[in-house]
Amino acid sequence: MSSTLQIQRIKESKRSLVDFDNLQFGSQFSDHMFVCDYKDGSWQNPSIEPYAPISLDPSAKIFHYGQSIFEGMKAYKDEQKNTLLFRPLDNIKRLNISAKRLVIPEFPEDLFMQGLTELLKIDDQWIPTKEGSSLYIRPFIFATGSGFHASPSTEYKLIIATAPSGAYFAGKVRVLIEEHYARSANGGVGFAKAGGNYAGQFYPTQLAIEKGYNQVIWTDDTSHEYIEEAGAMNIFIRINDTLLTSPTSDRILDGITRKSIIQIAKDAGISVDIRKVTVNEVIAAAKSGELKELFGAGTAAVISPIAAFGYQGTDYDLPDLENSYASLLKKKITDIQTNKSEDPYGWRVLIK
Amino acid sequence: MSSTLQIQRIKESKRSLVDFDNLQFGSQFSDHMFVCDYKDGSWQNPSIEPYAPISLDPSAKIFHYGQSIFEGMKAYKDEQKNTLLFRPLDNIKRLNISAKRLVIPEFPEDLFMQGLTELLKIDDQWIPTKEGSSLYIRPFIFATGSGFHASPSTEYKLIIATAPSGAYFAGKVRVLIEEHYARSANGGVGFAKAGGNYAGQFYPTQLAIEKGYNQVIWTDDTSHEYIEEAGAMNIFIRINDTLLTSPTSDRILDGITRKSIIQIAKDAGISVDIRKVTVNEVIAAAKSGELKELFGAGTAAVISPIAAFGYQGTDYDLPDLENSYASLLKKKITDIQTNKSEDPYGWRVLIK
Repeated sequence: MSSTLQIQRIKESKRSLVDFDNLQFGSQFSDHMFVCDYKDGSWQNPSIEPYAPISLDPSAKIFHYGQSIFEGMKAYKDEQKNTLLFRPLDNIKRLNISAKRLVIPEFPEDLFMQGLTELLKIDDQWIPTKEGSSLYIRPFIFATGSGFHASPSTEYKLIIATAPSGAYFAGKVRVLIEEHYARSANGGVGFAKAGGNYAGQFYPTQLAIEKGYNQVIWTDDTSHEYIEEAGAMNIFIRINDTLLTSPTSDRILDGITRKSIIQIAKDAGISVDIRKVTVNEVIAAAKSGELKELFGAGTAAVISPIAAFGYQGTDYDLPDLENSYASLLKKKITDIQTNKSEDPYGWRVLIK
Repeated sequence: MSSTLQIQRIKESKRSLVDFDNLQFGSQFSDHMFVCDYKDGSWQNPSIEPYAPISLDPSAKIFHYGQSIFEGMKAYKDEQKNTLLFRPLDNIKRLNISAKRLVIPEFPEDLFMQGLTELLKIDDQWIPTKEGSSLYIRPFIFATGSGFHASPSTEYKLIIATAPSGAYFAGKVRVLIEEHYARSANGGVGFAKAGGNYAGQFYPTQLAIEKGYNQVIWTDDTSHEYIEEAGAMNIFIRINDTLLTSPTSDRILDGITRKSIIQIAKDAGISVDIRKVTVNEVIAAAKSGELKELFGAGTAAVISPIAAFGYQGTDYDLPDLENSYASLLKKKITDIQTNKSEDPYGWRVLIK
């Protein structure tokens, strides 16, 4: 066992194979990854090594019992080519909140930051500089212990891998407000970034895509009366000049972009109301013209304006506003992230 | 691409390393496994090969989005050393029901049976003959396609691995009726054998274990008033001489042992009532002495009698009956499975 970070560099970089002017989201991976294993009761042997396949026993619990969690982060380059992170400690803390719910051992915050910092330095050339691009960072932990008994693993692997990425969604999205399927249960794992939360959304999302939508807006599983989140994004609703969003709960992810947007909006003088929002009031506001905007907020998608939503067979178009909250807030948050503006909140972290 | 089953045998069997008189559940694996890959729109290259580690890209969707399903089956030896399966087509059909919900391509029934049959013949010496032991069979499918976009994989791997196994639970179990946490949502994936359903149960189960119980009995996530299932087992409740069990739903697994027990009980003249059962009526029956038995039913655990249950801080002991339904039904189903009795239902399948 070693607790010192070992570094093994790749022999030949793959960077020249990547077209940095036409990046997709999360489909090409940087040269290295940070890896750390949990066994015998502790996280050990942290290392940076070439991004390469992992070997696992067929009975590894990740294959059978979905014991996995992840985070999504981004690194940015400012005009001076400094590397910046956005609220990374919030990601680490949320990773450990997810870990607790999934009975995965918590990962030490300082080791996480040490490994990530070294990784970003080694793969510095992989951080895109083009506007709208960033280095997407994917920390994840999964169960590597073996055996078919349905119980928590005793061994785990944490990996931080990175992918130079462009936009998650191309353009505005159309969403369907879900009436039958649900993303998460009361007392379930919806607040955690657990792998199984995502697989469960694929089928209802596929049905929505077949109807011409991009994403589902989830409602509560009991009554389907309340707007929850969009699975990969939290949802904001602008009625007249007030910005509404659901409070977090054990069914809704405590999004870092979500809470940053709430803070920025308040400080910009926008009235923000964090409360349960019913589908009916959104429909009524759409009909009366009081519904001005809908947008999603998340690390991958940043702020994703919604062009239209469907509900019970009817489509409701959102107006195309010139000075939308979505564009204002997106500019403000990305300016902070990329060091184009002051950061009164202390959210930006310089990697050095 | 090949659709012909390829067979590659192990050089040296590991069988001599296994103590067949003291088998645990699902912790030692037979020499071979059946493997088949899905890519370019079809299942291809089916093979039987040595049980060995699998290599996967770190961005494989199984690690991030929990896109995996599995089944549990058992093979038995009768006194003439014939190999027997129990209702295997029901497992294959359920695997494909799970597959649809998780947007995993369905697996061809005939190829499944062909691969499983060959595997059982090649690893014939791994099927235990000792009473109470069996060869546990674990078919599973997981997403192997790469990329961080939260969308279904385009590539998958099916594996059937086997493990000579003893009892899942040692002796009677104590269960806790859950009041806060939940296993599945209305409109969720609870009816599927999806990996994520299991990881989500680990934390509440751990809390129950810390209080001295073995398992949780899940209740509905809306009101916690209704008994659902035990996560690895369906639940049967005997009040006076009537056997109660919850109807299946989108939250409850359609257990093969469950429906077999229902059929056997009815044909044994036992009154079976399939309806929603409230926690309150179970408590009232426990207090009045009308609650005679509680037991779980599932492939891994077969029939698992419950000695006591906890609810709201109180423990309720079940009586220790001489002629329990649990022991009667367990004998009847295992006699069918192991060819000790007639099989009027046509459930037993001889492997040849």
